[in-house]
Amino acid sequence: MKQILVDMDGVLADVYQHLIQYEYRRTGQLINIDDLQGKTEEDAFPDFRLSVNSKGFFRTIPLIEGSQEGLRYLNDNYKVLIVSSATEFPLSLTEKEEWLMEYFPFISWKQMIFCGDKSSIRGDIMLDDHPKNLNYFSGERYMFAQPHNLNSVVENCKRVQSWEDVLRQL
Amino acid sequence: MKQILVDMDGVLADVYQHLIQYEYRRTGQLINIDDLQGKTEEDAFPDFRLSVNSKGFFRTIPLIEGSQEGLRYLNDNYKVLIVSSATEFPLSLTEKEEWLMEYFPFISWKQMIFCGDKSSIRGDIMLDDHPKNLNYFSGERYMFAQPHNLNSVVENCKRVQSWEDVLRQL
Repeated sequence: MKQILVDMDGVLADVYQHLIQYEYRRTGQLINIDDLQGKTEEDAFPDFRLSVNSKGFFRTIPLIEGSQEGLRYLNDNYKVLIVSSATEFPLSLTEKEEWLMEYFPFISWKQMIFCGDKSSIRGDIMLDDHPKNLNYFSGERYMFAQPHNLNSVVENCKRVQSWEDVLRQL
Repeated sequence: MKQILVDMDGVLADVYQHLIQYEYRRTGQLINIDDLQGKTEEDAFPDFRLSVNSKGFFRTIPLIEGSQEGLRYLNDNYKVLIVSSATEFPLSLTEKEEWLMEYFPFISWKQMIFCGDKSSIRGDIMLDDHPKNLNYFSGERYMFAQPHNLNSVVENCKRVQSWEDVLRQL
């Protein structure tokens, strides 16, 4: 069975919608996601660091549409490892695991990796939204579409637009 | 530079002394570490699961003697990754990172990996106290002596008795 490394933020967890809500609550300004195409998350959200360092931020992120059914399909057909960049935000660690346990109870603690840098994690396939992770991966690569990666080019990397699209391609 | 995977519990963090203190506070019985040789941690400590699932347990573990100087030496001479089995105990995650930040401030968040199973982490050298991790590692292997591994045999694995011994051998 092939081993697939699945990212959390921007693949399972809808960080953009959550950041938009956090900014709205703080400033009263509702950011339109269509205005964020091609911008990094830090450029798109003035209070990015404040939000992601808030207690509860990662525990309450909404799901990306189709991610539960999609990950269940992958888990039945691949050796899934959830690999999440998390150590930059220490509070996120326990919250991320609790979030996974709530929404993806079929994923066991043995399938979770929280790290700073993904380049030492072995796998056959990577599904991620960040070119910085995909670029250092030597297996098959799939970039999950998010506003920040609209203009990103990663060699030999397929782009997937949604979980529906993941299931079509994998 | 060679990449070395360094474990936390039983290598940097003195889990035995901490468990002995937790048991003593709960039962009034002071367990003698010499009576624990060859026993698993779960067999050695009746309240093992209760202790490791307590809030604060991993945040307050004492250091293993020589670990700060020893890890600083390794960090100057190798590419160090701290790789810790942590997802079995979700509360431990944030506490473990905060603990590392306090006692090993020269280790950055990019050098930390918290996981359930270490078999997908790449490295040239592993320093660990658990045969279950060392057995699946294909590089050079060093087993840090702890009561539970007294009788453990791992093929092609050197045994180190202390951090002084690590520095002598590495």
